[in-house]
Amino acid sequence: MIIVVSVSKVLLFGSILVKSVSGLWPIPQSYTSGSGNVMVDLDRLTIINSGCASDILSRAITRYSCLIKKEKFSPPLDYNISAISPVATLSRLEITVNYDNTVLNLDTDESYSLVVNNDGSSCLEANSVYGAIRGLETFSQIIVDNYGKKIIKNTPISIQDAPTFKHRGILLDTSRNYYSLDSIKRTIDGMAYTKLNVLHWHIVDSQSWPVESKFLPDLYKKGAYSLDMVYMHTDVTNIIDYARDRGVRVIPEFDVPGHTYIVGKAKPEIMSCLDVQPRWDLNAAEPPSGQLNIAKQGALDFTGNVLDEYASLFTDNVFNVGGDEVNRNCWNEDPYFIQYLSENPTEDVESVLRSYYAFVYAKVAALNKTPMCWEETLMHTNFSLPTNTIVQAWIDEASVPEIVNRGYRVVASPYTSSYLDCGHGAWLSNWVNGNSWCDPFKSWMKVYSYNPLVNITTPAARSLVLGGEVALWAEQSDEIVVDKLLWPRAAAAGELYWSGPYVPNTTTKRDINDAAIRISEHRFRLLARGIQAEPTQPLWCIRNPGHCNLPETLL
Amino acid sequence: MIIVVSVSKVLLFGSILVKSVSGLWPIPQSYTSGSGNVMVDLDRLTIINSGCASDILSRAITRYSCLIKKEKFSPPLDYNISAISPVATLSRLEITVNYDNTVLNLDTDESYSLVVNNDGSSCLEANSVYGAIRGLETFSQIIVDNYGKKIIKNTPISIQDAPTFKHRGILLDTSRNYYSLDSIKRTIDGMAYTKLNVLHWHIVDSQSWPVESKFLPDLYKKGAYSLDMVYMHTDVTNIIDYARDRGVRVIPEFDVPGHTYIVGKAKPEIMSCLDVQPRWDLNAAEPPSGQLNIAKQGALDFTGNVLDEYASLFTDNVFNVGGDEVNRNCWNEDPYFIQYLSENPTEDVESVLRSYYAFVYAKVAALNKTPMCWEETLMHTNFSLPTNTIVQAWIDEASVPEIVNRGYRVVASPYTSSYLDCGHGAWLSNWVNGNSWCDPFKSWMKVYSYNPLVNITTPAARSLVLGGEVALWAEQSDEIVVDKLLWPRAAAAGELYWSGPYVPNTTTKRDINDAAIRISEHRFRLLARGIQAEPTQPLWCIRNPGHCNLPETLL
Repeated sequence: MIIVVSVSKVLLFGSILVKSVSGLWPIPQSYTSGSGNVMVDLDRLTIINSGCASDILSRAITRYSCLIKKEKFSPPLDYNISAISPVATLSRLEITVNYDNTVLNLDTDESYSLVVNNDGSSCLEANSVYGAIRGLETFSQIIVDNYGKKIIKNTPISIQDAPTFKHRGILLDTSRNYYSLDSIKRTIDGMAYTKLNVLHWHIVDSQSWPVESKFLPDLYKKGAYSLDMVYMHTDVTNIIDYARDRGVRVIPEFDVPGHTYIVGKAKPEIMSCLDVQPRWDLNAAEPPSGQLNIAKQGALDFTGNVLDEYASLFTDNVFNVGGDEVNRNCWNEDPYFIQYLSENPTEDVESVLRSYYAFVYAKVAALNKTPMCWEETLMHTNFSLPTNTIVQAWIDEASVPEIVNRGYRVVASPYTSSYLDCGHGAWLSNWVNGNSWCDPFKSWMKVYSYNPLVNITTPAARSLVLGGEVALWAEQSDEIVVDKLLWPRAAAAGELYWSGPYVPNTTTKRDINDAAIRISEHRFRLLARGIQAEPTQPLWCIRNPGHCNLPETLL
Repeated sequence: MIIVVSVSKVLLFGSILVKSVSGLWPIPQSYTSGSGNVMVDLDRLTIINSGCASDILSRAITRYSCLIKKEKFSPPLDYNISAISPVATLSRLEITVNYDNTVLNLDTDESYSLVVNNDGSSCLEANSVYGAIRGLETFSQIIVDNYGKKIIKNTPISIQDAPTFKHRGILLDTSRNYYSLDSIKRTIDGMAYTKLNVLHWHIVDSQSWPVESKFLPDLYKKGAYSLDMVYMHTDVTNIIDYARDRGVRVIPEFDVPGHTYIVGKAKPEIMSCLDVQPRWDLNAAEPPSGQLNIAKQGALDFTGNVLDEYASLFTDNVFNVGGDEVNRNCWNEDPYFIQYLSENPTEDVESVLRSYYAFVYAKVAALNKTPMCWEETLMHTNFSLPTNTIVQAWIDEASVPEIVNRGYRVVASPYTSSYLDCGHGAWLSNWVNGNSWCDPFKSWMKVYSYNPLVNITTPAARSLVLGGEVALWAEQSDEIVVDKLLWPRAAAAGELYWSGPYVPNTTTKRDINDAAIRISEHRFRLLARGIQAEPTQPLWCIRNPGHCNLPETLL
């Protein structure tokens, strides 16, 4: 793959060379351009789907046609350019999709090619409808507003593009605080605008159970914050459909056996260490404490029922069973657990946990799902995790190569660069001088500069790195602030995992100065599309690229 | 003054006693209540102004009548209470204002008393319209939604209230990024809801000059981000009027001689070190560098013209002339400045700066304004600052007693507890591993727990502490995110400076557990009033006070 960048801005300060590629985000793998300009005739614009009969593609065409007509976005660097004289008019984009397969999973082909010629002709080719959707997004981004007209600059343009990583996600925690369906859909919109493709829906946790349950309605009737704050089955399906239309998979997480206090509202008899006070800290990572009492058959039965119900509701072939932050002390001090161990002297907490996981993973396999879990299940238990499990790293960057070394597929989300809730101070009610446990705040640059391939050298090992996620845990967030916390930082992850950490065919990391220009533009594009993304810099800095750099000698 | 708290929630965990006073924010100085409940008859509700002819009060009555009718706020702790049976109906609030004076300044009397009886009768008494406005806010807060009815709980209620500090402010920086008039008005609304009374409008800085100038139109024509991003004189007056109606003073800051790069767009000939690259750091605290060349008469003339124009436009009797972060090196390396010093061998940078300040403060005095400035002018120059100057501390908490020791009135805003933009990572385009200079993030608890009276012991010395401000600098904020960055943290400052750091008549700091309950409620009240305040905790914690505390042994 060859990258040919169109240098629209070259600014030299000391040794800093700033390049900008027409503000596309994420940057395509390969891009050639010229010096022409084409005007898009909005009144006549037709996007033609030649051949593929998919409703998904038809809806995407309608959606992007509307978006292109409605959006008023002019890049911030264009604030004082003159009116552009187009050489031709574009009124037709022809889309060819080579295969009709609309299955969306880890193996979906998202590649596409997009050409806009100087005579105004244009075509988009992809192997799948999802590749075509990625290409439509790129097509929408090359069109900018110029004195009220829609212009494509730097024609002819030829783009060959494909993702570097297959799994590019956002984790959204809807348990600590509730997120409306609208805000989840808006988040999916932002993902589509940024070529992210996995919504890791951390749907339940200790604080609330906001999803309908058929097998045990008390889970949500007693566990949701209110009956207005419940995702009914129909709502979940609606979200899954909405996401699929945008090439986004929805992978649910039902975290067991920890992070389950709220189950005790419906079934206290299968729980341990429920809301221990004031020393919750000896029983959980945060209040309220509470774990499934895995020494009880009822806890296994419950887990099985959860898996049955939600593996059917959530259609993706991957199902996340959590497994993080299991607290041994919670069980060590549980009277039933103590009694059980005394009656079963060959057992201990680890063996009981191992048996529990054996049950869970057998069930996941029986349901024809690929299991996904947090790294502790692999690294901090002696359970033999099925080798097809996708393991998510969060504790530190070194976990990623470690998981690969053990032969497992990994999704990278080390908190040090991926946790977007970090750096927001303490939230425990009385902890005046407390700070965020995962300080400092993760800037877009920090997210962008993480390299999931560090210390993973062979192609075979690298192929186990499926991609990564950024995570928005919700102790201090909800639908009111979700846009600002996700965007544009999640977009930094979007480019990291789509375009890759390296300039193609090199071992050179991508240039942060170039990214700074484009992500600032992308922030304004997101704003123009109704997503309340936060500002990255003073507008003065955005308009004067390179003038707000830290001097290299001080870096 | 006696405080009698109505303990509506008493929760005991270990040694933690959690008290909540009907969710009022800020908490009144004195409050007694009973166990009755009165229903507010919205259809017949009349707020009567007996005597005072002020239009300001008439408009406040209209405003609060509408707010009470429109607002749907039920405290989060009431999520599962039963329908309340009222003992009587309230349909009339009688307001008495003792003096007609509508001047709003440091000496305005904001005290009020509010009584609601069990028979539904109620009255509000104040010495000024602004006290009445504070009382109307409290009245609006005691009314909550209960099964679709408006209820006042815990009657009879008697409140005697007055501010502890006279100056309770928010600094808003509208130069690094632009804030729409709507967002400024919404900020003023939030201030009124929180009994804050000073908008410190840091209106210009190096990055943009967003305010109309009559004497030098190029200031905004070349210095505003766009002609759509200009506060015209009429806009400023509109904001001042809007703020006054809510008992909020508008103190402008025109920062000189530093932080003035943007002046160079209109008058480069009076500037030094304009946008030095790449080593801006040797010339300014942040890019772009640029200071008035105070060795030039033109810089003094310019300053005089700025003061003339804006001291007239901004009607408050206090005028802030900045004076922070003056960079000596900028002048030391300026060819004109070097030449000037060589021709005037008795002068040096400090003496030129002293002369400049002498000119500035004489001008402020001639314009009949009380000067306000940042602490450096007092502490880091050898200029004899007029003794009527109000000095704003920001560098550290120790500056506050130091300024008082020197005999000056002080407004406290140490960055360590008052800078709401802190903790958001680096914003210089290429500083991947950089953090916020003022890390960590200032949580509401950090803001709340600051005590401006520390190390100031005598009543005379304490009387020099006029109050404090929280500051929102705008490198990483704008109107899109302003609500979540200010609220509810600025409200923490609202209670700190209104109610005071101590329980009245004691040397006991106010209880953070009690505040935690009420500020969480206040956050939802702000949401109900259209301000997008950020969440403080998982809703589970808000509904279970004391259950999300750090154990005392770990504090």
